[in-house]
Amino acid sequence: MTLEWLNNRVKALNSSFQQSAAGHQLQLTKPPGSLGQLEDIAVRLSAMQATNKPKLEQININIFAADHGVVSAGISAFPQEVTVQMVANFSAGGAAISVLANSLNADLEVVDVGTLNDPGALPGVISRRAGAGTANLFEQDAMSTEQLSCAMDAGREAVMRAYDKQADLFIGGDMGIGNTTPAAAIACALLNADPVALAGPGTGLDSAGVSHKAKVIQTALDRYQGLDKNPLETLRCLGGFEIAALVGAYISCAQQGLPALVDGYITTAAALVAVSLQPEVKHWLLFSHRSAEPGHKAMLDALEVAPLLDLGMRLGEGSGAATAVPLLRLACDLHNGMATFADAGVAEG
Amino acid sequence: MTLEWLNNRVKALNSSFQQSAAGHQLQLTKPPGSLGQLEDIAVRLSAMQATNKPKLEQININIFAADHGVVSAGISAFPQEVTVQMVANFSAGGAAISVLANSLNADLEVVDVGTLNDPGALPGVISRRAGAGTANLFEQDAMSTEQLSCAMDAGREAVMRAYDKQADLFIGGDMGIGNTTPAAAIACALLNADPVALAGPGTGLDSAGVSHKAKVIQTALDRYQGLDKNPLETLRCLGGFEIAALVGAYISCAQQGLPALVDGYITTAAALVAVSLQPEVKHWLLFSHRSAEPGHKAMLDALEVAPLLDLGMRLGEGSGAATAVPLLRLACDLHNGMATFADAGVAEG
Repeated sequence: MTLEWLNNRVKALNSSFQQSAAGHQLQLTKPPGSLGQLEDIAVRLSAMQATNKPKLEQININIFAADHGVVSAGISAFPQEVTVQMVANFSAGGAAISVLANSLNADLEVVDVGTLNDPGALPGVISRRAGAGTANLFEQDAMSTEQLSCAMDAGREAVMRAYDKQADLFIGGDMGIGNTTPAAAIACALLNADPVALAGPGTGLDSAGVSHKAKVIQTALDRYQGLDKNPLETLRCLGGFEIAALVGAYISCAQQGLPALVDGYITTAAALVAVSLQPEVKHWLLFSHRSAEPGHKAMLDALEVAPLLDLGMRLGEGSGAATAVPLLRLACDLHNGMATFADAGVAEG
Repeated sequence: MTLEWLNNRVKALNSSFQQSAAGHQLQLTKPPGSLGQLEDIAVRLSAMQATNKPKLEQININIFAADHGVVSAGISAFPQEVTVQMVANFSAGGAAISVLANSLNADLEVVDVGTLNDPGALPGVISRRAGAGTANLFEQDAMSTEQLSCAMDAGREAVMRAYDKQADLFIGGDMGIGNTTPAAAIACALLNADPVALAGPGTGLDSAGVSHKAKVIQTALDRYQGLDKNPLETLRCLGGFEIAALVGAYISCAQQGLPALVDGYITTAAALVAVSLQPEVKHWLLFSHRSAEPGHKAMLDALEVAPLLDLGMRLGEGSGAATAVPLLRLACDLHNGMATFADAGVAEG
């Protein structure tokens, strides 16, 4: 395996701009702290972007699509061909994330990192296939070392494209029927958690289906020992190509100094791997929403993060992150546009 | 007291468009329910606007400003002159709501319903003064019957202006140093609640200040009997001019069929009065955010509503509602713009 870039240093936040931004917030015409998380967002973006005027004009969204051998174990409410059908739907502009990207005036790219059937050439879809879906993690390692490397490189390349286009924010999304199973398996391995606690209905399993899914994950976990101590091997044995791409993307964002807005259940599992590999990656991650998938809470708690939104969303595709973008933009607008007590001649409390 | 319009009928929601919208959501290329509250918002707006294509292009924001005699009882962290200073700040474009309105391309009006000192002519500020602040509710009725009528009429007029300008959504905001005290007093009276449970730090009281505030409210409540059975009298004895204006505004929105997005603590107290007067008003209210002011939860629970955001905001001015507007707009975009399973050739689960 190559992946030498994985150990490159994460960029440091600019603590000088951070302090200056925090001080500026105290001067704005409002009671201190009264804008809540919007203040924190503005201060964090100031530190990330090393600026007095944080901005989120250029948003880059990359959706990583892949299939999962474990679907043959009966862990999903939707059939596997939907992954490729949704790639076509992304390309045609009909999916939720297509609509959201358009409303946000964001750049949307789709990366096929390994759907079961090659969708062929489609506008806006980049082919970086690591295979025709992963192997069935119920029975064997989900992917080879070479496939892991290929998928993580695809994530890194997406970030480098966003960086070259001077994106202010990177959003990674996922598409892959069955992918709450590998995501839950990874989280269980890294957090030493019970699959019963982390497996949920995904796109719509009933309670018997959720039970079966937890047993499938437990079987996979039983095959390995010590995965909690080796996040990369966890990712290889239990993961998916799109999850590996997201891990590569988050680490690359932190290395390049590009803020990343994490979406929901699948992407948070990827963030957990990335932060397990390099804890400083967390400084570059903003968390957008709490998924309706029950196990998401355990992952967010382990990362000690509080997302902005809790709207009962559970779609993936980066849709929760995209929905949170306007809040981040308003946080910047308030930070940059409000009058100070002195400017406005308003008495301080 | 005039206020004959108070008893005019609330407009009925269009149940046919509501059903059609709910059915449409099930056809969109996503697992059913996976957009969470964004789906509910789109369906509710379809029923309110009686349309297949809900939209929120024209947003009208009215900030009602007034002062409160009870500030002399020492219940606020900020001095009373800040109310008028902030009215000037709204007018000059420097306040949080000014910035937010600009970012949302919303129409912003400020209505002086009774600040202590008349701010005089200011751009964007409408003078509809019911008095030079309310009387001190710690000692006497906050306002006369005539003042109540004047303030509620001011709220109604604001909604009629918004309606005439073909607004798609009305946002009422509040500005009034000390106004968490009347808001808490009203909620205590209507919910038969203990002031200790509903009084909070407001703009920044310490725990001794919060205790004192609860005692002030209890003293006011002790002077009256049966206020929970007469919401209008509750509003007159314990309220504020801006709160009365908001009550008038919400009832008028429901009568005109104009969706209203409720902000935080003060506006929810007004919504509580409005819904106590006419329960059907609730059908026209959307709730934007949960305030950091602890007692807000009890009011939201009593109304049986779940707001969209919980960002730790506690500024008033309509700022929480304005922050939620992009989520409502995205909900409309998704409803109107996503492909159906049939259109996109995607298999259903």
